[in-house]
Amino acid sequence: MGRGGSRTYIVGVDLGGTKVAAALACPDGTIVGKALLPTDAAEGGEHVIERVFTSIEMVIDDANLRVGDIAGVGIGSPGPVDIERGMVIQAPNLSWRDVPIVSLVEERLGIPCLLDNDANLGALAEYRFGAGRGFESVVYVTVSTGIGAGLILDGRLYRGVQGRAGELGHMVMIEDGPLCGCGSRGCLEAVASGTAIARQARERAAKVGDGILLELAGGDYGRITASVVAEADRLGDPIARWAIDSAIRYLGLGLSTLVNVLNPHVIVVGGGVSLLGDRLFVPLREAIRSHTMGDLGDSLHIAPAELGNDSCLLGAVSLVLEEGVPVRSCS
Amino acid sequence: MGRGGSRTYIVGVDLGGTKVAAALACPDGTIVGKALLPTDAAEGGEHVIERVFTSIEMVIDDANLRVGDIAGVGIGSPGPVDIERGMVIQAPNLSWRDVPIVSLVEERLGIPCLLDNDANLGALAEYRFGAGRGFESVVYVTVSTGIGAGLILDGRLYRGVQGRAGELGHMVMIEDGPLCGCGSRGCLEAVASGTAIARQARERAAKVGDGILLELAGGDYGRITASVVAEADRLGDPIARWAIDSAIRYLGLGLSTLVNVLNPHVIVVGGGVSLLGDRLFVPLREAIRSHTMGDLGDSLHIAPAELGNDSCLLGAVSLVLEEGVPVRSCS
Repeated sequence: MGRGGSRTYIVGVDLGGTKVAAALACPDGTIVGKALLPTDAAEGGEHVIERVFTSIEMVIDDANLRVGDIAGVGIGSPGPVDIERGMVIQAPNLSWRDVPIVSLVEERLGIPCLLDNDANLGALAEYRFGAGRGFESVVYVTVSTGIGAGLILDGRLYRGVQGRAGELGHMVMIEDGPLCGCGSRGCLEAVASGTAIARQARERAAKVGDGILLELAGGDYGRITASVVAEADRLGDPIARWAIDSAIRYLGLGLSTLVNVLNPHVIVVGGGVSLLGDRLFVPLREAIRSHTMGDLGDSLHIAPAELGNDSCLLGAVSLVLEEGVPVRSCS
Repeated sequence: MGRGGSRTYIVGVDLGGTKVAAALACPDGTIVGKALLPTDAAEGGEHVIERVFTSIEMVIDDANLRVGDIAGVGIGSPGPVDIERGMVIQAPNLSWRDVPIVSLVEERLGIPCLLDNDANLGALAEYRFGAGRGFESVVYVTVSTGIGAGLILDGRLYRGVQGRAGELGHMVMIEDGPLCGCGSRGCLEAVASGTAIARQARERAAKVGDGILLELAGGDYGRITASVVAEADRLGDPIARWAIDSAIRYLGLGLSTLVNVLNPHVIVVGGGVSLLGDRLFVPLREAIRSHTMGDLGDSLHIAPAELGNDSCLLGAVSLVLEEGVPVRSCS
């Protein structure tokens, strides 16, 4: 089983605030097994690390395999990571700081481990297995509670100097605009994320005082989430329509800047807000085209992400493949 | 002289609307000879092509060399070029369209010729010989009549899919803002270029009706250029100060987006507006830092271009070196 030659499987781990997911995958991206555990971050860092080990062991055991069959482990973490030192610098909702997860895994399992943030892994996954397949320059944008991006440029993941490239969510769209979680004002994230859609709809609904939106939220403004706004929009609620249109307009402006600067083949949009489907993509394509320079939009594709919840897991698998860890095909 | 081995010199050509410049250079960037001819674009495309040949031959002849001593020719052109086909697609002020300059030079001289636009060449030049030396991710921004950028990412020139990356000047800063030359509104170029500084100062001066600015322009609003505004600003004119401050504010916003997205080591600013020196760089650094995400600005350098008018010439020389054309050291 793997002695003297390449190993066959890769394990990808998606380290989230509420759950730790692991996938056992073949090099072609086929997922042959999954494990899902609650993170229980409140129980502390040691506990979360154990959860990571447990999830990895579960997918290996469930497939009747041994660590010797695994070529490597890829881990995706939300928020900033230190690639060089293999450390999670800060993980929102995990109360983690400076956890050397890569060396912990490598010491315990004796196989290569690689780490990156979830936006970079989303980009790698869509580039290798999803909507970015066959393109050399792929911008992956995730629009959910926040907005982030991963960049594949000329066939390689571009991370930037501090591994911090892709902070698309914090480009300033409106000077002195709404306050952003980062402390700045008017960031793209503060006007176009799912959180922003919910907040803007909530604020306007509170002024109007009734309507479909409030009904769907059971009369409680606090329960107006992005999903509730999407549902109200489908039912024709004008406040919901306005909030979504506004977010799309800013997202189009922000992404047109990326197109003007990076001239990519494709922009792949994932995250919860991308589930709006044509309601998002039709006006978004129009907004991007109308703000891009001359023929820059001509060869551009704007596509929904294809990998959904497996995005980070398959990105973690891709990361192991990208780094040239030798892997034998499953078949 | 070059037979059976590498050749020693490189010729760089800067194809401009008013002049054609050529430089004979060593691989270390030392310029050993220069030629400068008027473009006389009005006399037609054939004439301009002959000017290119003449400038190349002049620098070779002046140094008592032969074509056999030249490793390759690099050419910089303003505006879009087709790298694959070696064609100038469109050159503003040259009335050129689809001129296959690379194959024309290669056929006539029998040595490799390479072509790129002036923003990309500025980036290559500053990366190899100027303010970007020693850094792996360098954003070169030129701010003059227009605004453009060239991107060196992880040590390589990033051109984008259609060779059109770096259209920084056309990111939208103000929806429905001032009309831009590209047909859009509120582009960075329309609010922060030298042209924009002059226009905004002119418009405001026309309302006020007197002041240092108007005096310096000899009482003729039409003669208020960016240089005149810079001079009036040095003399304390409030309209000039306002116009320059406004341009810097928008430039800072635009560049902070590049920093958030690309997390580069250094932003090198060239072009006429960069000659403002500390008047530009001190508030620009502050503006960029205040709009970049968290610690992204910490390791960032914002530096004036070092190569001035030789930027495009030395970029054309760098292009030949980047492409791996074998060259022997001059010394």
